[in-house]
Amino acid sequence: MKLSTLTLSFLLMSGVVSAQEKVSFVNPMIGTVKMGHTFPGACVPHGIVQLSPDTDTIPHSINGVYQKDTYKYCAGYQHDDNTIVGFSHTHLSGTGHSDLGDILIVPVTGEYKFNPGVADKPRSGYRSHFSHDTEVSRPGYYEVVLDDYKVKAQLTATERVGVHKYTYPANEEQKLLLDLTHGIYNYDGKVLWASLRVENDTLITGYRITNGWARENYTYFAISLSKPIKNYGYVDREKPKYTGFWRKFNLQKNFPEIAGRKIVSHFEFGSDNSPLIIKVALSGVSTEGALKNLEAETKGKSFDKIVAEASSKWEKELNVIDVEGDSDKKTMFYTSLYHTMINPSVYQDVDGQYRGIDHNIHQAKGFTNYTIFSVWDTYRALHPLFNIINRERSVDIVNSMIAHYEQSVHKALPVWSHMGNENWCMIGYHSVSVLADAIDKGLNIDKKKALEAMISSSNVDYYDGTGEYKKLGYVPFDKNGSGSSITLEYSYDDWTIYNTALKTNDQAVTDTYKKRALNYHNVFDPELEFVRARYSDGHWKTPFNLLSTHGEGFIEGNSWNYSFYVPHDVKGLIKQMGGDKQFVQRLDSLFTMHLPDEFFADTEDVTREGVMGNYVHGNEPSHHIAYLYAWTSQPWRTQYWVREIMNRMYRNSIDGLCGNDDCGQMSAWYIFSAMGFYPVCPGSNEYVFGAPYFPYMKVKVGDGKYLEIKADKVSDKMCYVKSVKLNGKPYTKAYITYDDIKNGAELTFEMAATPNKKRTFSEADKPYSLSK
Amino acid sequence: MKLSTLTLSFLLMSGVVSAQEKVSFVNPMIGTVKMGHTFPGACVPHGIVQLSPDTDTIPHSINGVYQKDTYKYCAGYQHDDNTIVGFSHTHLSGTGHSDLGDILIVPVTGEYKFNPGVADKPRSGYRSHFSHDTEVSRPGYYEVVLDDYKVKAQLTATERVGVHKYTYPANEEQKLLLDLTHGIYNYDGKVLWASLRVENDTLITGYRITNGWARENYTYFAISLSKPIKNYGYVDREKPKYTGFWRKFNLQKNFPEIAGRKIVSHFEFGSDNSPLIIKVALSGVSTEGALKNLEAETKGKSFDKIVAEASSKWEKELNVIDVEGDSDKKTMFYTSLYHTMINPSVYQDVDGQYRGIDHNIHQAKGFTNYTIFSVWDTYRALHPLFNIINRERSVDIVNSMIAHYEQSVHKALPVWSHMGNENWCMIGYHSVSVLADAIDKGLNIDKKKALEAMISSSNVDYYDGTGEYKKLGYVPFDKNGSGSSITLEYSYDDWTIYNTALKTNDQAVTDTYKKRALNYHNVFDPELEFVRARYSDGHWKTPFNLLSTHGEGFIEGNSWNYSFYVPHDVKGLIKQMGGDKQFVQRLDSLFTMHLPDEFFADTEDVTREGVMGNYVHGNEPSHHIAYLYAWTSQPWRTQYWVREIMNRMYRNSIDGLCGNDDCGQMSAWYIFSAMGFYPVCPGSNEYVFGAPYFPYMKVKVGDGKYLEIKADKVSDKMCYVKSVKLNGKPYTKAYITYDDIKNGAELTFEMAATPNKKRTFSEADKPYSLSK
Repeated sequence: MKLSTLTLSFLLMSGVVSAQEKVSFVNPMIGTVKMGHTFPGACVPHGIVQLSPDTDTIPHSINGVYQKDTYKYCAGYQHDDNTIVGFSHTHLSGTGHSDLGDILIVPVTGEYKFNPGVADKPRSGYRSHFSHDTEVSRPGYYEVVLDDYKVKAQLTATERVGVHKYTYPANEEQKLLLDLTHGIYNYDGKVLWASLRVENDTLITGYRITNGWARENYTYFAISLSKPIKNYGYVDREKPKYTGFWRKFNLQKNFPEIAGRKIVSHFEFGSDNSPLIIKVALSGVSTEGALKNLEAETKGKSFDKIVAEASSKWEKELNVIDVEGDSDKKTMFYTSLYHTMINPSVYQDVDGQYRGIDHNIHQAKGFTNYTIFSVWDTYRALHPLFNIINRERSVDIVNSMIAHYEQSVHKALPVWSHMGNENWCMIGYHSVSVLADAIDKGLNIDKKKALEAMISSSNVDYYDGTGEYKKLGYVPFDKNGSGSSITLEYSYDDWTIYNTALKTNDQAVTDTYKKRALNYHNVFDPELEFVRARYSDGHWKTPFNLLSTHGEGFIEGNSWNYSFYVPHDVKGLIKQMGGDKQFVQRLDSLFTMHLPDEFFADTEDVTREGVMGNYVHGNEPSHHIAYLYAWTSQPWRTQYWVREIMNRMYRNSIDGLCGNDDCGQMSAWYIFSAMGFYPVCPGSNEYVFGAPYFPYMKVKVGDGKYLEIKADKVSDKMCYVKSVKLNGKPYTKAYITYDDIKNGAELTFEMAATPNKKRTFSEADKPYSLSK
Repeated sequence: MKLSTLTLSFLLMSGVVSAQEKVSFVNPMIGTVKMGHTFPGACVPHGIVQLSPDTDTIPHSINGVYQKDTYKYCAGYQHDDNTIVGFSHTHLSGTGHSDLGDILIVPVTGEYKFNPGVADKPRSGYRSHFSHDTEVSRPGYYEVVLDDYKVKAQLTATERVGVHKYTYPANEEQKLLLDLTHGIYNYDGKVLWASLRVENDTLITGYRITNGWARENYTYFAISLSKPIKNYGYVDREKPKYTGFWRKFNLQKNFPEIAGRKIVSHFEFGSDNSPLIIKVALSGVSTEGALKNLEAETKGKSFDKIVAEASSKWEKELNVIDVEGDSDKKTMFYTSLYHTMINPSVYQDVDGQYRGIDHNIHQAKGFTNYTIFSVWDTYRALHPLFNIINRERSVDIVNSMIAHYEQSVHKALPVWSHMGNENWCMIGYHSVSVLADAIDKGLNIDKKKALEAMISSSNVDYYDGTGEYKKLGYVPFDKNGSGSSITLEYSYDDWTIYNTALKTNDQAVTDTYKKRALNYHNVFDPELEFVRARYSDGHWKTPFNLLSTHGEGFIEGNSWNYSFYVPHDVKGLIKQMGGDKQFVQRLDSLFTMHLPDEFFADTEDVTREGVMGNYVHGNEPSHHIAYLYAWTSQPWRTQYWVREIMNRMYRNSIDGLCGNDDCGQMSAWYIFSAMGFYPVCPGSNEYVFGAPYFPYMKVKVGDGKYLEIKADKVSDKMCYVKSVKLNGKPYTKAYITYDDIKNGAELTFEMAATPNKKRTFSEADKPYSLSK
């Protein structure tokens, strides 16, 4: 749903937003169809609650057969569905794997149904039809009418509480379902245990423990109700294996303490015609923690007040960047900014208690604990972005990662972690990059402890080929099907350790990791001048397909794309690739070569629009590639291709995202690229120039300090950089540094309709490279 | 196993015990065959760890068919078995329902087997044959040789840590199994989840969550090893339903973090020929809690030191009573005293954190939290005994019960609770009796809060007929198959509330509960003059069988036995039974009537020896009956029958217990009866006289204060009381009071070979009765 003129007018009239407000430019519906995997529901910045409609929950396997469609529902919602199962409280934003969907609530009327039913059989379960015409989605607020029940549902949230307002048809008995079996990426047995207590007639507590992508996820809750429960009960969708002496009771009716593996409970509230308001607080610690969260964040607050506060929280966060430009582009920009502010999410109770990776309860001391670290994606641009626009949060995130390391039996930083669990998704030990970048930016973290954690994480020999990598200098294909991808990424990660060690004058570490940082050479076939799958004995894989993403030693990328992945040693890479001319030709070819559609049938996580030539923007390994021209003789080409990518792959429409948003990484790429520069090599101090996207941007980089980015007359035509000034003075480098902008700066671009091919860079003015 | 002369000599020579020590008179083997349901393993007084061999674990059902033999293994051990499955850390003492058996460890050699196998197929699994010849069992210590592996196993314990010492055959690879699927009353699916971390090569942590009799039991552990693990791994006895990206790893070998539903792990230690010592700390809170417990209780302590400390702890506790008498009787006495000091068990970490009945973690403030409350059994004599010999522990227990009440969504005191769970076993709300007795004895507890909890517990209308009871004055048979038992027990419980309210001068409560205390009349059929099953409409059940324990409105007792259950209004009962003569006749008949063996085939929880006439001592409802003669014209008969029961039903032999010891209630009955009096009506200040069993007893009743009980010449022949003196003065009442003995006293019985039939009691000297 695009925010319609009518809706906007209504919002303006109602005073919820004013024309100047940033929230009015956010369209949470962008990316909610196909591969975006975003959700339209209500949340506040980095809150742990994402209260959103689930339109389906295809189990991940039926009778042992994997269901491909499961993948569609990573965020629980696909815009082309026409039924809503209910509203659940936790959703990942833009991921390529799915989980969560905890604590599903459905307002219903009439006869109960205790299973969700299937979309193509109307009324086969409790799910309801809905129309997008009734949907309203804006930051912190979602609204829809469930047609089958004629219930208007309005949702909002605080950091830890989902708030529901249900308006039932007149004179109907108001009913609720609370389905503790529901989940995203559900399978038979995912819920290990669920428990529910009706504490009194307006308060319910409970929890469930699930074995999903998060191997052991503890979701505690406390639900306060605006009116007393008249009657309640439950069904257990599985015959309990053991009931003991609980059989004494009539558990099914008005019995306040139920538990089991497959519990669906129901509540009735009479028919007094007033709306029912429900506040659902979450905690990873305990029901006591959920009650504290409920009280601290919502006590005494009306639904409308919470809606207004949620909007204010977004406005405050989005206010970090002012942008001038056309409405569609501003919408895409602020929606992207919005998407960078959902995950990571605060994972602690209001009193600082949280469940660690060891599943013990810890007290966060001196930091706020965060979770949902899609690090393979987000180390690239999201964390670097935080280091500019939200350094405090970045410190918290780094401290959360270090706490994870300290609790980890592997003594490793997060790979892909959520809800107190490591899920090991994707490759690399890229948290080292996140720490390195924070240290490089001078953030207030314990450098010594951080370096210890980085070194330790890179020496878990049983982790994904690390032992082989240390021994052979690469991860062999016969031991690991993604060995060449991994080798490249470890090389970069090792560079971040090298670069951090440099700052702490640790010579032994510096030497070791400098050597490791050059390991990428070991997977470059000198004949092909491309990265190739290599066996333990040193032989290259034959036959070898440069274009296939499957079975050739790579993951989420082919050799063509991955061969450009040496962000820390681009000069070395250019040599390895045969020199400037061939390197530029190859970059050009990447963006322009013609490949038949069938070729992309197996490419993960991206729509056909997410591919340009052989360049796959919908997956992350290529995100820096368009910026590599900066090291070549033809840097202007970056300006062209970056704008092409922005225009083609980020569109203000429901299907406007070309691939998974990946917890904000895709969006962070867009924010950086719009600013006119990009962190090709996080951990270095440099951002490599592209070209600005908007005529004016003002980026808050600290208290009262701003980076202003001026590009008068910039447009799709006037997309080339003629010259650059920093604080009014001509600026001739291919990059700016963090130190240049951290205390505010004015960056002025003179734009032109044709490339300034004379604007090339001396070796000294080129961006960082390990090899000179 | 009876402690053999040889073993005793060895112990004496080794200095572990001296001839005078009380521990030398304890034989933990008593009750380990047939119905005693005691265990032979190592524990310290009221510790949460009971480290003991499990000889079998018949699942509670196979292919949906209930397995009767499951019941045999309530304590995991039956002395007539010839194989040991392994050593697990938690065992209930003497219960009639089973659970626990958590964290099974088995020292093995040779090829691994990962399932326990079955007893009648040698070597079908990891279980091993053993011989009782190699067994040593004494307080805090257990030893056996596992013949199939030729491993000598020695076990000891602290409150929260089980300590194992395994001596393997020379030059054999030393191996351990840690079977997290093992459990007592196991069924497929009991283990909801188990997790294990190898923190380093001498430390393992983990936990499991089980759904058993304790509906949600969280058992965390930390295991320290005396020598480094060389290799380790596990098998998952169920194909995991979802593994996510953990499939990246070779989880089966030396991977330090495993989890699943059916995990059996194994560890190898090389073959250095030194014994392997393992310390296994438990916690209901967290692995962090288990580590704290491990450190606090065992750090730096050798196996031998912990053995010696365990012995000292027992010696100190058992020292509360000195007894003179013959060796067999002393053994029976101190073994009984030992059995009163296992449950309830401390259920908190060393820092006071514990898991409450709401499954949240609580901090015990100002008390030590206890669990395993078999209240239906233990309110009768065990808690009253604590109120004499261990008042501090009694205060802790009462405070634990009040904490349970406060955490309970039902706002009810424990019925039968263990490990932070209410299991609802048996009937009544007898914790009110425990609180009432503690208040009556002047213990330092919050009276107001206690009375609030008592009143609340008696008004949970959906609990076991309470609503009907309040409405009709009895629990009708058509609503509840145990209705008449329940009515009698609620009447007594209500009397304890009445009697407590009297002390707080709460007139309204007093009036209400005095009326409720007389509800027992409502199930007395005036024609039969026996208690009878009664329907909601007031009609009596017809036909009605006075002798059957099944289907007649009773539980664990028949009408004949239960009709005597009005401990708070014996005078009222005598009237209801037709007066003194008929009452005495009926008491006599109860003990003497001839019933065919077949009659007892269905009687629960007792051996044939546990029945005398129609009197069933193995079940609790009759425990006070032999003392009821005190209210009649023939009080001397109590002296006869009590000694008969003691001699017949408590014998120093492995099968010496006539029924379940029931967490010490059977034993507490014996201790009281040996002292010569019994708390017929807990909550009153009185103990009703029987006759002393030993010539001399000295009971510590406070710091430096003693109750001395002298009965020169008492024997099976000289078993009748001629006269009594209290502190040297003739004493003519049928009872003594707590106030008489609480600060120490001398009670002298003159014994005789024939009853002193003239020693009858005036109405004023008879024990308490609500009706006069």
